[in-house]
Amino acid sequence: MEDFTHFNEEGHARMVDVSEKPVTARAAVAECRILMNAETIRLVQTGGLPKGDVLSVAQVAGIMAAKRTYEIIPMCHPLMITSADIRFSFEEKGILIRSTVKCNGETGVEMEALTACSAAALTVYDMCKAVQKDMEITDLHLLEKSGGKSHFYRREVQRV
Amino acid sequence: MEDFTHFNEEGHARMVDVSEKPVTARAAVAECRILMNAETIRLVQTGGLPKGDVLSVAQVAGIMAAKRTYEIIPMCHPLMITSADIRFSFEEKGILIRSTVKCNGETGVEMEALTACSAAALTVYDMCKAVQKDMEITDLHLLEKSGGKSHFYRREVQRV
Amino acid sequence: MEDFTHFNEEGHARMVDVSEKPVTARAAVAECRILMNAETIRLVQTGGLPKGDVLSVAQVAGIMAAKRTYEIIPMCHPLMITSADIRFSFEEKGILIRSTVKCNGETGVEMEALTACSAAALTVYDMCKAVQKDMEITDLHLLEKSGGKSHFYRREVQRV
Amino acid sequence: MEDFTHFNEEGHARMVDVSEKPVTARAAVAECRILMNAETIRLVQTGGLPKGDVLSVAQVAGIMAAKRTYEIIPMCHPLMITSADIRFSFEEKGILIRSTVKCNGETGVEMEALTACSAAALTVYDMCKAVQKDMEITDLHLLEKSGGKSHFYRREVQRV
Amino acid sequence: MEDFTHFNEEGHARMVDVSEKPVTARAAVAECRILMNAETIRLVQTGGLPKGDVLSVAQVAGIMAAKRTYEIIPMCHPLMITSADIRFSFEEKGILIRSTVKCNGETGVEMEALTACSAAALTVYDMCKAVQKDMEITDLHLLEKSGGKSHFYRREVQRV
Amino acid sequence: MEDFTHFNEEGHARMVDVSEKPVTARAAVAECRILMNAETIRLVQTGGLPKGDVLSVAQVAGIMAAKRTYEIIPMCHPLMITSADIRFSFEEKGILIRSTVKCNGETGVEMEALTACSAAALTVYDMCKAVQKDMEITDLHLLEKSGGKSHFYRREVQRV
Repeated sequence: MEDFTHFNEEGHARMVDVSEKPVTARAAVAECRILMNAETIRLVQTGGLPKGDVLSVAQVAGIMAAKRTYEIIPMCHPLMITSADIRFSFEEKGILIRSTVKCNGETGVEMEALTACSAAALTVYDMCKAVQKDMEITDLHLLEKSGGKSHFYRREVQRV
Repeated sequence: MEDFTHFNEEGHARMVDVSEKPVTARAAVAECRILMNAETIRLVQTGGLPKGDVLSVAQVAGIMAAKRTYEIIPMCHPLMITSADIRFSFEEKGILIRSTVKCNGETGVEMEALTACSAAALTVYDMCKAVQKDMEITDLHLLEKSGGKSHFYRREVQRV
Repeated sequence: MEDFTHFNEEGHARMVDVSEKPVTARAAVAECRILMNAETIRLVQTGGLPKGDVLSVAQVAGIMAAKRTYEIIPMCHPLMITSADIRFSFEEKGILIRSTVKCNGETGVEMEALTACSAAALTVYDMCKAVQKDMEITDLHLLEKSGGKSHFYRREVQRV
Repeated sequence: MEDFTHFNEEGHARMVDVSEKPVTARAAVAECRILMNAETIRLVQTGGLPKGDVLSVAQVAGIMAAKRTYEIIPMCHPLMITSADIRFSFEEKGILIRSTVKCNGETGVEMEALTACSAAALTVYDMCKAVQKDMEITDLHLLEKSGGKSHFYRREVQRV
Repeated sequence: MEDFTHFNEEGHARMVDVSEKPVTARAAVAECRILMNAETIRLVQTGGLPKGDVLSVAQVAGIMAAKRTYEIIPMCHPLMITSADIRFSFEEKGILIRSTVKCNGETGVEMEALTACSAAALTVYDMCKAVQKDMEITDLHLLEKSGGKSHFYRREVQRV
Repeated sequence: MEDFTHFNEEGHARMVDVSEKPVTARAAVAECRILMNAETIRLVQTGGLPKGDVLSVAQVAGIMAAKRTYEIIPMCHPLMITSADIRFSFEEKGILIRSTVKCNGETGVEMEALTACSAAALTVYDMCKAVQKDMEITDLHLLEKSGGKSHFYRREVQRV
């Protein structure tokens, strides 16, 4: 049963006990991509729209989802995040989404950062699906985390 | 402004008016993958755990997220889904997750199916992250939809 | 696997497919008791408080919980309930709580009625726990349901 | 007890029974104002920011709140709104906010329109409060409703 | 970009980083009015109803909304409020609603107090709208706040 | 008005002020039973199903409900629970459900433990109701609590 800390001795899931872990400053950075046609990218960027409005909605969605991560992911601890930000970067084949989340707590904010990216990407999908149905959300991963016992983690190899 | 139906004439986002669309039977199938090491896959499958318990939690997460899609994706319409199911398939490099969602409504359930996959994959990540931090969620896409004006859509080319 | 309609063929839970069931008028009545000392009952009834205020809060809690049943019970379908009411009756050893919930839908409102009773009773507990810690919530059951294929059900034997 | 349809015969609140009302097309328009200094208005409009971004966030907030009205207002029925939009108009002393909400249902969407305005105004407050603390949200009222037994209502006298 | 702390350098909204702010005792008081006819006031006060029941429901709504402010206002930080109370005062032309909210946290509870007032007022509207449709919610403002860097704020001029 | 700490001096409910209570380690254990036929018990245990899957879903439901207790019980304080676990034990006439919840906070987690048991039991009901409608949820009580001013409480007499 070694490392699977979410399971109690009956094999059922539980929320890991972090009661005695110290409160430390935590941060996590996550990323994903949404792949879309050049025409769809162009419409997001310029298409008669005030620049960035698809992304504004996606950003709000990502930040709000970060706050509610523990309601979506069953074994996540409730956390009071102290900062959340999302950035978008246009690439040749789509949009790169990067989230940064912080909190002061007994446990890390990886899931919050990943959930923020995921909700932002799904929102971009939702807002563009009238013009393209075969977009794809891909490469969702944790880029970096700090705080807690493991101090610092940074993803070594990065798929492009 | 052509096809971007989520924007009103000021360029701000709005929830598209579907008041006069007929209620039809809707279905959508979505898929994604979570890539993990062989050792992590083995632990999910057998690792001293009753088979499938990580997946049981992920499945509950996916189904519950499908029901709350309209709370997570800002411009999604509230929908009363009538069916939701999630299947998992072990692959050489990870787990394939497939969701199927149905409703009778004025608008489709693509976002519900995509959100279900996404929440299920994030839950697998959460429950395995103690043993592997560099998992990746990828290939999230709509596989098939039916109902509504466009009747039937099936994704042509499939990336593997 | 016969009757366990919440499980798909892999043995994982799913939300039962009710897509093709007709929409019919549904109603359900549920009941429970909260057992408390005579002194606690007296304080709820009169204790310097405007009569019924503990019960007013409990009633609001029950009605609000009925609306969110599908967020609490994982495999419940989302339903738009059209009516919810809760009544309280003082008994020698506590308070009897009865909820009535209705909807027009493809599936029944038993879980909504049971959840309403449960939330109302927990709220009474919460509001009285400063004066009595060993209250007990008991006898939560479905009293009656109507609508759908099984038309009408009424509990035969009633424990007192 | 005449007209207070939210109270049952014990005087406790209940969700009014709309089970037997016909489903009709419903719409409601609501308005409010947020009063602010000329300098704050100018910052919302131009202040180095891409035009409209405070309002973009406020609009998303209003639309999302409309969908969750029945979770915020205890006796509101759950409704599946089919359309929601929010417009902003700069005035000499602040910003006028107007929401329009529609649904096909047994009961009206007045509360959804009012809640959307309210959440949008609170969001403007939140995003400007670093520069002005004494803003005021005022004049929140129903402007117009249609559908249901009373067919059409339009507010006669309008305070300016 | 000076004072608009909710915007990152791309001009998109973000949740302000409060990670390094000290935890201090915070309080905020907010007020609003709901204007109604003398007859509606009378019905709220006496109308065959146990005195105060409209207000009991409104109070529960306000307190519950205070707890969920960060789900409604997109850039609000999650906070664990430690106290919430709402008072009502009958005036000649309506009802004055005053909320008081406290927490120990890195950031203030102004939005929680304003949201509590707003939800309470909307609930009064909802529960009286069968007898009067042209009620108006007005004068929503922050009356007082304490805690944090700015220590103490009290609104100077008060509109009546 | 003595001990009813949820009421302000007007007799309306309020969230008790815990601002000045010290943060201490809190724990609570609660229990309930769901009574069912021998045949239903057998189906939960073996019935062609992977052992424990009804219970897996119930466990997830209980843990998720514990996190959202303050949204369900109106006067409960928001708390960031640091641990939640649920165990099931088969008895002759049903299933005994025991929850354990912890947090570091100004107030206790009794309501979280009771709500977790309640949601788990309701989920068992939901998943078995196709085979038995007259199940009953009973004996819901607090077994033990620790932390805070009253240090330690353990229920003396236990009804069986």
